[in-house]
Amino acid sequence: MRISKRGEVDAFIVMDVMEEARQLELQGQRIIHMEVGQPGTAAPAAARAALAGALDHPLGYTVALGLPELRRGIADLYRRWYGVDLDPARVIVTNGSSGAFLLAFTALFDAGDRVALGEPGYPSYRQILRALSIEPVGIAARPENRLQPVPEDLAPVPDLQGLIVASPGNPSGTMLDRGALGALMDHARGRDMAFISDEIYHGLHYGARAVSALELGDDAYVVNSFSKYFSMTGWRIGWMIVPEDHLRRVERLAQNLFICPPHASQIAALGALEAEEEMEANRAVYARNRQLMLDGLPAAGFDRIAPPDGAFYVYADVSELTTDSRAFASEILHGAGVAVTPGLDFDPVRGASWLRFSYARGTADIEEGLARLRAFMERRA
Amino acid sequence: MRISKRGEVDAFIVMDVMEEARQLELQGQRIIHMEVGQPGTAAPAAARAALAGALDHPLGYTVALGLPELRRGIADLYRRWYGVDLDPARVIVTNGSSGAFLLAFTALFDAGDRVALGEPGYPSYRQILRALSIEPVGIAARPENRLQPVPEDLAPVPDLQGLIVASPGNPSGTMLDRGALGALMDHARGRDMAFISDEIYHGLHYGARAVSALELGDDAYVVNSFSKYFSMTGWRIGWMIVPEDHLRRVERLAQNLFICPPHASQIAALGALEAEEEMEANRAVYARNRQLMLDGLPAAGFDRIAPPDGAFYVYADVSELTTDSRAFASEILHGAGVAVTPGLDFDPVRGASWLRFSYARGTADIEEGLARLRAFMERRA
Repeated sequence: MRISKRGEVDAFIVMDVMEEARQLELQGQRIIHMEVGQPGTAAPAAARAALAGALDHPLGYTVALGLPELRRGIADLYRRWYGVDLDPARVIVTNGSSGAFLLAFTALFDAGDRVALGEPGYPSYRQILRALSIEPVGIAARPENRLQPVPEDLAPVPDLQGLIVASPGNPSGTMLDRGALGALMDHARGRDMAFISDEIYHGLHYGARAVSALELGDDAYVVNSFSKYFSMTGWRIGWMIVPEDHLRRVERLAQNLFICPPHASQIAALGALEAEEEMEANRAVYARNRQLMLDGLPAAGFDRIAPPDGAFYVYADVSELTTDSRAFASEILHGAGVAVTPGLDFDPVRGASWLRFSYARGTADIEEGLARLRAFMERRA
Repeated sequence: MRISKRGEVDAFIVMDVMEEARQLELQGQRIIHMEVGQPGTAAPAAARAALAGALDHPLGYTVALGLPELRRGIADLYRRWYGVDLDPARVIVTNGSSGAFLLAFTALFDAGDRVALGEPGYPSYRQILRALSIEPVGIAARPENRLQPVPEDLAPVPDLQGLIVASPGNPSGTMLDRGALGALMDHARGRDMAFISDEIYHGLHYGARAVSALELGDDAYVVNSFSKYFSMTGWRIGWMIVPEDHLRRVERLAQNLFICPPHASQIAALGALEAEEEMEANRAVYARNRQLMLDGLPAAGFDRIAPPDGAFYVYADVSELTTDSRAFASEILHGAGVAVTPGLDFDPVRGASWLRFSYARGTADIEEGLARLRAFMERRA
């Protein structure tokens, strides 16, 4: 049976690490999971209570853009978080940020268009673009720019129709400040490039709050989700803010591509918006974990790290230790019982000498993982 | 800000009817909804109970292809329904049938490919294909072929890379029997066209059970969902069976495009598989409704109807009454207080003289709707 060229997307390299870890666990070994990109916590109690109270209702299709009260609640978040007055009509509830990217990319780009993205970055940007016959153009972000792209990196690259940025970034956790984000938006504006701001890690900051593209202009697609700050990964519920004159087009696409986001997840998300106290308690755990990482990783020998302003990752340059991050991750897994993510998932070139460490799990696991890493590296030295 | 050409998809025409109906309801009028494409019933009690019992768990990401026990349960359905022995590894749990189409089309077709679909048919096939830069090629199905395409319709059409069929069809409710389905699969095979069988209305039959493409060969993509028979539209949970040698490619696409289907909906779906008694009771209601429609619609003057073997629709040729189904639907809404769907959503040409009547709601509504239609048509005559 025939197949497409566009369907030839890459596998996640971390999947091999996860499978190896699973095999070791089946053999009875306890593995510390520093490869995971999701909170260890459940959805907030208020989210689960909201859904429990709605389970007797039919929960049929909602309108494609999502429950009006959820869209209002999300708009209100922009007031609380950024002081931005946002019309709820511009909020599109999506099947996670994944659904938002599918909508954004089909609304904005045609087959053959070229879209820039900073490397290192979230691997699925590249693969979703490819699956839609759009060409991803990797921009090597520099450590001195906090591993975020800057206009000078983009200027020499011809024929770009769009730019995706993420702040805080994954895997780096680094943020674009107001000036840096604004400079990228200006550059995109000047070249008639669509600007997509992935803000999925907003809310998870350990100093100043992350700046939203929406604070700097209405001519951007802003993607966010309940997965990270609200601890609702498996619920597949997110949102996107689009310019007002794009609303009808995105609504029609959403009707046809998705019909609507999962109704039960929308109900739960509505509850989650009321769970600030629980979410802030989670954030305090991440903040503590982060400090442990910033102390413990250098003590173990991983001292060349990007400044993790937000999210729950530390991205470490291990070029003095390896030129094969995949093999090194496997060595760490077997030698220390700690699963980590090879940088190759985020940067097909330089990622061979970087590793991502996640601190999304409980503090006890982080302490144990760091102790294991230190002992392993001492043995290895 | 720039936009794409591919994002210029059509709106659903029925949305105008639904908005008009909403306005009338706001004015206090009671509207009978024969435009809806979803059950009026809630998810099965066993599905809701399963989820209620799982709400204390983290419900994080599942693997991309879905919970192994759900995939086993779906495979088992093929044994029970069709006597087909299906390897659970070939079952891919999806974000509704919508998610399945996105995966199928990206796995199978490149930009510029041409994919045939019978008209009348589900409007989103066409729009999803367009959004992926694939060209939908409408095949006018003939009433004497139960409004389903036949190989002779396809033979003269050059350069096709795929074919989508649906049995029971939407809007027609007509089925392809074993011979007719097999002939289409043979035709596709002979031309190296991918074959996609939309089986979303399977389980909702009123005579013989619908035939699955999987009974006739393994070289097809078979799409199904918990939305219709299992009454779980808003849960956005469905599945797809793919040939064994396509599994890894579809898995990689699913990882990147969706990460995973909604975890809560997967848990609920697992419960739904145990709810056969409740589902069969729903089917008995549809069967009763269908008989009321088959008696009542001709009595009201809608006597040129496709034989509705399954699903919960009746598609009526109203060419003796109108050449503008959109205006006629509006006239029926205002004159009878019954919302119906203009055929134009399903067939951009001949649909101007067809209407779709849904009998998915409760029997009392169907009786009331038919009485209203009859009175309206008598006044109109």
